Amino acid sequence: MHDAVAHLAPLLGTWRGEGHGTYPTIESFDYVDEWEFSENGKPFLRFVERTWIGGEPRHTEVGYIRCPAPGVVEIVAAIPTGQAECGTGSVDVSDGLVVATDATVGNTESAKQVDRIVRRFEVDGDTLTYGMEMAAVGEPLTLHLKATLQRVS
Amino acid sequence: MHDAVAHLAPLLGTWRGEGHGTYPTIESFDYVDEWEFSENGKPFLRFVERTWIGGEPRHTEVGYIRCPAPGVVEIVAAIPTGQAECGTGSVDVSDGLVVATDATVGNTESAKQVDRIVRRFEVDGDTLTYGMEMAAVGEPLTLHLKATLQRVS
Repeated sequence: MHDAVAHLAPLLGTWRGEGHGTYPTIESFDYVDEWEFSENGKPFLRFVERTWIGGEPRHTEVGYIRCPAPGVVEIVAAIPTGQAECGTGSVDVSDGLVVATDATVGNTESAKQVDRIVRRFEVDGDTLTYGMEMAAVGEPLTLHLKATLQRVS
Repeated sequence: MHDAVAHLAPLLGTWRGEGHGTYPTIESFDYVDEWEFSENGKPFLRFVERTWIGGEPRHTEVGYIRCPAPGVVEIVAAIPTGQAECGTGSVDVSDGLVVATDATVGNTESAKQVDRIVRRFEVDGDTLTYGMEMAAVGEPLTLHLKATLQRVS
């Protein structure tokens, strides 16, 4: 594992749990959430998220959390609803691990417009808490997703 | 497989071959290239690229090719060197399959600046030809990567 990402090691593995989604423009929903974080010896982690509703695959996204310098985190992600996310973040290791990112978003022509995505990953032992706020379709930054996951591998 | 992406089926699978990289600001290089395209019943393909030089993992990236409407292709990708790519494309099925995309690129703060990425995938039976042009670090759109791959699964 690359030294630059060693402090993110508590994120590595596969996490699964329950999430709740909400947004001013949609009906709230519950979902099954899975996050997988992996590394390949380079100064970044790769992540894949997959969700299910009623046993059916629902959402997925992929990306990287980069550690270009000590204390610096950056995120890039691709979302198949037509978003490309690019931002910066912080890491706090004082009590478990908290990774927080704040990103601007590019949108393909046919996509619903997402302007900003703010993510927060909190690892406490084998529990991962995930929160995502989003500014989209004319709404200001608003809580969209909240999930609590357990390490499954 | 979703009807919207059925015409991209010839891309599905894992491809491996040899590539050559060049750019005005770097030494040219040869590499081993692998592309994997998969689908999950939704109107997009997911791709993962992995490269090696001298047996060592070198580059990787992930993304999606979306088909939001007949004849329309869009691309979103995350590149762990700090780029998030978002663009449109075309599909030509008149002679094999040609998928061409042209994207603008967002860059994280610490990343080398990439402004535009133009990709071309040509499938002819079990051969995939890949070309990538890039406008980056002040250079105009210039050929960066060219690879010829064979289907391995």
